[in-house]
Amino acid sequence: MSQQKVVLAFSGGLDTSFCVKYLSEDRGMEVHSVLVDTGGFSDDELRAIEDRAYSLGVKSHVTISKTDDYYQQCLKFLVYGNVLKNNTYPLCVSAERIFQAIAAAEYAREIGATAIAHGSTGAGNDQVRFDMAFRIIAPEAEIITPIRDLRLSREAEIEYLKNKGVEQEWHKAAYSINKGLWGTSVGGKETLTSSQFLPESAWPTPVTKTEPETITLTFEHGEIKGISGAATGDESFANPVDAIRRLTELAGPFGIGRDIHVGDTIIGIKGRVGFEAPAPLILIKAHHTLEKHVLTKWQLYWKDQLANWYGTMLHEGQFMDPVMRNTETFLADTQGHVTGKVHVLLAPYRFQVLGIESDYDLMSAKFGSYGEMNNAWTGDDVRGFSKVASNQVMIYEKISNQ
Amino acid sequence: MSQQKVVLAFSGGLDTSFCVKYLSEDRGMEVHSVLVDTGGFSDDELRAIEDRAYSLGVKSHVTISKTDDYYQQCLKFLVYGNVLKNNTYPLCVSAERIFQAIAAAEYAREIGATAIAHGSTGAGNDQVRFDMAFRIIAPEAEIITPIRDLRLSREAEIEYLKNKGVEQEWHKAAYSINKGLWGTSVGGKETLTSSQFLPESAWPTPVTKTEPETITLTFEHGEIKGISGAATGDESFANPVDAIRRLTELAGPFGIGRDIHVGDTIIGIKGRVGFEAPAPLILIKAHHTLEKHVLTKWQLYWKDQLANWYGTMLHEGQFMDPVMRNTETFLADTQGHVTGKVHVLLAPYRFQVLGIESDYDLMSAKFGSYGEMNNAWTGDDVRGFSKVASNQVMIYEKISNQ
Amino acid sequence: MSQQKVVLAFSGGLDTSFCVKYLSEDRGMEVHSVLVDTGGFSDDELRAIEDRAYSLGVKSHVTISKTDDYYQQCLKFLVYGNVLKNNTYPLCVSAERIFQAIAAAEYAREIGATAIAHGSTGAGNDQVRFDMAFRIIAPEAEIITPIRDLRLSREAEIEYLKNKGVEQEWHKAAYSINKGLWGTSVGGKETLTSSQFLPESAWPTPVTKTEPETITLTFEHGEIKGISGAATGDESFANPVDAIRRLTELAGPFGIGRDIHVGDTIIGIKGRVGFEAPAPLILIKAHHTLEKHVLTKWQLYWKDQLANWYGTMLHEGQFMDPVMRNTETFLADTQGHVTGKVHVLLAPYRFQVLGIESDYDLMSAKFGSYGEMNNAWTGDDVRGFSKVASNQVMIYEKISNQ
Amino acid sequence: MSQQKVVLAFSGGLDTSFCVKYLSEDRGMEVHSVLVDTGGFSDDELRAIEDRAYSLGVKSHVTISKTDDYYQQCLKFLVYGNVLKNNTYPLCVSAERIFQAIAAAEYAREIGATAIAHGSTGAGNDQVRFDMAFRIIAPEAEIITPIRDLRLSREAEIEYLKNKGVEQEWHKAAYSINKGLWGTSVGGKETLTSSQFLPESAWPTPVTKTEPETITLTFEHGEIKGISGAATGDESFANPVDAIRRLTELAGPFGIGRDIHVGDTIIGIKGRVGFEAPAPLILIKAHHTLEKHVLTKWQLYWKDQLANWYGTMLHEGQFMDPVMRNTETFLADTQGHVTGKVHVLLAPYRFQVLGIESDYDLMSAKFGSYGEMNNAWTGDDVRGFSKVASNQVMIYEKISNQ
Repeated sequence: MSQQKVVLAFSGGLDTSFCVKYLSEDRGMEVHSVLVDTGGFSDDELRAIEDRAYSLGVKSHVTISKTDDYYQQCLKFLVYGNVLKNNTYPLCVSAERIFQAIAAAEYAREIGATAIAHGSTGAGNDQVRFDMAFRIIAPEAEIITPIRDLRLSREAEIEYLKNKGVEQEWHKAAYSINKGLWGTSVGGKETLTSSQFLPESAWPTPVTKTEPETITLTFEHGEIKGISGAATGDESFANPVDAIRRLTELAGPFGIGRDIHVGDTIIGIKGRVGFEAPAPLILIKAHHTLEKHVLTKWQLYWKDQLANWYGTMLHEGQFMDPVMRNTETFLADTQGHVTGKVHVLLAPYRFQVLGIESDYDLMSAKFGSYGEMNNAWTGDDVRGFSKVASNQVMIYEKISNQ
Repeated sequence: MSQQKVVLAFSGGLDTSFCVKYLSEDRGMEVHSVLVDTGGFSDDELRAIEDRAYSLGVKSHVTISKTDDYYQQCLKFLVYGNVLKNNTYPLCVSAERIFQAIAAAEYAREIGATAIAHGSTGAGNDQVRFDMAFRIIAPEAEIITPIRDLRLSREAEIEYLKNKGVEQEWHKAAYSINKGLWGTSVGGKETLTSSQFLPESAWPTPVTKTEPETITLTFEHGEIKGISGAATGDESFANPVDAIRRLTELAGPFGIGRDIHVGDTIIGIKGRVGFEAPAPLILIKAHHTLEKHVLTKWQLYWKDQLANWYGTMLHEGQFMDPVMRNTETFLADTQGHVTGKVHVLLAPYRFQVLGIESDYDLMSAKFGSYGEMNNAWTGDDVRGFSKVASNQVMIYEKISNQ
Repeated sequence: MSQQKVVLAFSGGLDTSFCVKYLSEDRGMEVHSVLVDTGGFSDDELRAIEDRAYSLGVKSHVTISKTDDYYQQCLKFLVYGNVLKNNTYPLCVSAERIFQAIAAAEYAREIGATAIAHGSTGAGNDQVRFDMAFRIIAPEAEIITPIRDLRLSREAEIEYLKNKGVEQEWHKAAYSINKGLWGTSVGGKETLTSSQFLPESAWPTPVTKTEPETITLTFEHGEIKGISGAATGDESFANPVDAIRRLTELAGPFGIGRDIHVGDTIIGIKGRVGFEAPAPLILIKAHHTLEKHVLTKWQLYWKDQLANWYGTMLHEGQFMDPVMRNTETFLADTQGHVTGKVHVLLAPYRFQVLGIESDYDLMSAKFGSYGEMNNAWTGDDVRGFSKVASNQVMIYEKISNQ
Repeated sequence: MSQQKVVLAFSGGLDTSFCVKYLSEDRGMEVHSVLVDTGGFSDDELRAIEDRAYSLGVKSHVTISKTDDYYQQCLKFLVYGNVLKNNTYPLCVSAERIFQAIAAAEYAREIGATAIAHGSTGAGNDQVRFDMAFRIIAPEAEIITPIRDLRLSREAEIEYLKNKGVEQEWHKAAYSINKGLWGTSVGGKETLTSSQFLPESAWPTPVTKTEPETITLTFEHGEIKGISGAATGDESFANPVDAIRRLTELAGPFGIGRDIHVGDTIIGIKGRVGFEAPAPLILIKAHHTLEKHVLTKWQLYWKDQLANWYGTMLHEGQFMDPVMRNTETFLADTQGHVTGKVHVLLAPYRFQVLGIESDYDLMSAKFGSYGEMNNAWTGDDVRGFSKVASNQVMIYEKISNQ
């Protein structure tokens, strides 16, 4: 009888290494590991993970490159929508996990696997993201979650692997770091409390720049296409992914984009996580400022409404709901005029949007400036406006006081 | 025949000085000037304004102190609602102007004035705020707006006053500054463009502190009641107004709270204004962080919805709509658990919320920590949750692909 | 050793009768049954249920009368908010189930029960409502759900009871009927399809009135306090619950208030249920019409937003979230002016709101009538209003076409 | 010197007839009248209006046919969005007036007119719709509004025309009727009150059908494409405009679709208007029911949010704001699965949606029926769901009671 085929979302860490052994040896399955790259790995890292997979005994290992899809199908809309969860968090981890889960599930269908496994514990958001994506994309496949089900301690997992002949040094870092294209999350003993901030040493990128720099970001229809400045020269980017990487390099050494997000997890408790995400924070603030100049009041209002919801759904693993596609259509449709330049000051631990230039700027002096009289309307027009605009409450007050 | 009684909202500047002369001499009216103090004036300034009013020939002048009302009826709710217009602007000027307009209109009713005047031009938001408040509170009174109607240049106003014997040096500052309890607005040649930021010299408070300090803010039911820190000692405030002033003193010299707001004016054009508002920016961010720990997901969501709208209505002079009272009731009702301490780092040009402590903290380790397993639920519970939560989209996908 | 005490939410039907026997005999527990009356039972029915409980062997049975609480803590707000789920369904069953679950859980705490049981199957919304209320109110208690867990067929339950000596005729009606103060739900073979409507015979109240009648409803601060009409005379109601019952009697025999609701269940599938709810449909439409006359545009808008959400949360068992209390505060605060009379035509299978009278009517002819000129504003004022109100889009168009 | 060219939106009624004479003779302008047909006129009516225009002395008259554009650019989205203002009114008049105003303004640009005139009074919504469309589309043109500016009585206008040799009988109907493709509005002495309903005689279409009929509507991607029934046979419609007309013919004689809308006018007062709109009411209710079966919960939610706002903006003359185009994109994107049949009972003064059939029905029995157990999830899954879904409020309660 043939072995059951299982696809395992594999990262090379302790938990998923345990899963390979457990699934193949204890459960007797044919393990096909998959690493979905959304931009957080170097080529060397990818090779090392592949080597480890084979050394643990997988039947096959594949690396699925999803960086461009990730940008085109998700990050782009986070910029269009200026999405910062709870006004703070660029959803670095949430978005990646979903894309990894979807790609793994699609791969399982493709190779005809009848089971699909992930290494998440029962304590966080990721398990739900994996569970949901697997069930929606590959509903016929059994979902296997050894770490969640067995509730083994770290020590027990290491002991198990040792008994299977895997004699590796499993380094337990003081801070758990999750690096991706859209930012790096940082968890540690401080983030388990409500009151403490992360120490300087916990942040992955050390602060090495002290002299402020000014850069100019060029947006075309809402997408970043250029970065220039005295220190950087003029750079154009056919692929916004490259601009994101470049911006991370430029701003990271200033310590820009560090913060702690506290918010509601999918499982109902509050969670707290540090992150270092210079590129999204700068891009979103710059993009938003440009939009405030080129979009109408109600475009800004409804973009906010939809994008805020979009962020929450993404965070909670609901990326596959068709309302997300409808929302992306709306957001994309608003970006026609979001073209121009945004000047940004980079300084240690902070940045400041300085101003914008755009052919679509509704603040164009051609049509009158705020605080300066002009020919588009008269004082009498405003007097009439105020009168009509106060009619209802004026009547309400009269009736209240009659 | 008796003279027509007019109440004039008087600030002592060129425009309202012109109005006194124009209304009393050219229009032959009995001018009663009123200065509504919402916390932006020192006693000396108030006395100087009163002296000026009488020297210009008003029949009477009164100073109406509205600082506590302003906090109790408005600022308090801006904190409860974490209101930053367009995610940026604490509405320093908008809110004050409304309160000044309402108080002037109520005073006009009280003394039986049949007219009421303001000195706004036809170019900005303030005219609408005054017009609307006057019409709603005192609909029977004629509204007189000499500066808007006559469209005089600054020079023409000075010449007019000179001819009336008012020989004063009317200083034209490079930056127009509007100081209030909730912040100071700054306009100048840069804010008339879209691309330029204000220079260091434009900001009213020079940066004199360079060494970071940590302070702790104490909130009780959403209101600031204490500030403490190594550099400041422990201070309690029976009146939050005093805490706002103290926080301004502490944070202002760091250059904290400076930014430029760009957004939609009531009259449909885009406007840009600088502001220096350290106290509201810190208070709101600290209060919001505390709320993220003690309120439920849906309380946070609906507070945001209502408060965002509240800010827009306030900005646009719609403060008297009864929906604003309903909204205040909602916001106040959410503050029962918003009690605790918030630790904040103050540093040059920036601040950082470090963490919070609260008896109502939903992140309390007593009920499980994010990322750590606990006894409140099992992995199987989450598996069930994920399954049920993905039911609809799973079915949707099956139907789409059938 | 003492028996484990279990509280059972008991209705007297087959499922909960099975539970009594199963819990007491198979599980050896001390069963305390509770019937929570939210207005859907006659005294005779309550007595019969109590008799049955004791005859099945419960240790104690109590009837908890929650009708007034149900109105004061829930139905009142459904009227204030004009809540019809999906524009159709007055949430007759959803609201009652929550109240029953809460009362049962509170009773369990009160008598120190360590377990609490409900008889819901695993197929519908009610199980979630019971589960959630039990866990929130009595988190320390074990939740026991025999019907859901054992997945017995109806026939197997009858057989089981027969073996235990319960020899009753368990009538299987063609339509499952759930009667309550706020309406009666009707399920049957048609509601399991998407395409069929319920036949005349399925509806609990036969249509016996054929001649249209006009009635007048009197609202005070949003609550129904009187019903009058040629056929009914003038009736006042100190308790709105009595008015709801009276309105049901008056309108039911017209066949008013029948419809089928289709919508999303808590468990992610679509569900369809018939209902007959003449009182809520008339009350809500009448109340809403009155509000359209006395509230401002933005009060109406935000009431809709919050109330729609309130209905969804209630439907989904989230009644205990504190945002619900905040929302009730908002809704109550809007009802100050919702006082007046509403004239309604009752006719076979339909009703029509004819008009309203209120001292707070903002359409009062005293302030000008729509389509008639008046003194509150001039054509020039409106011209100015239109100009200012079109400024932004006018500028947008110019910039688009430049 | 050449005469100033003015385009006049002309309807052939007393007000616009006055305008022709006034503009051409008193103001010496070259009048180009335009009638924009959005589906409310017969060919005979259009010819008669043209004849009258020339007989009054216009330089030219054109009829611009906009019926298809009106459907494609507006009505279609009102169906997609199930738009009923205040849950009642299909916006029959509002939408037409905007389209007429836009077409007139575009015509003015096309023929190089330097002025553009409408015959609205200063008392209603239409003046704002005309003013705004004219200013946005043709900002360089002067807007002339003789009726609003001169404030003439009806009698004075008739006298004026008589003096100019126009000796026509100007019939003053008891009810002012405004007929269009999307419904007919009815104003009269009752709608000027708050308390009275329109009498049977006021409604344009007499009730002549008494026997209920069942029809089936076929929707393709949200658009109506077929109507069938025992009494009507099977009809397909390449153009939904024809289906709308057919449905009006079928349902109108039942007295279906009559109601009174009360709501906020653009100018701040409350207005009340009767309408007879059988086709939109049936189409929207049928379409909405179909959507409840085929769309996800969050698609339904966000469609409602956006569409409600869309209706308000349309009503208030803000149709040209670019957010309206973004919203249309969203709405259109949601209609992919809105394909199927809807069965509707037509009866005197009412209709009832009976059920639907669709290949995209999410209630498909293939995936489990509400209230019936199935294989997609177990009772244990729901238990886990309930537990996780109640986590936050459970913790909140514990903290509140500690």
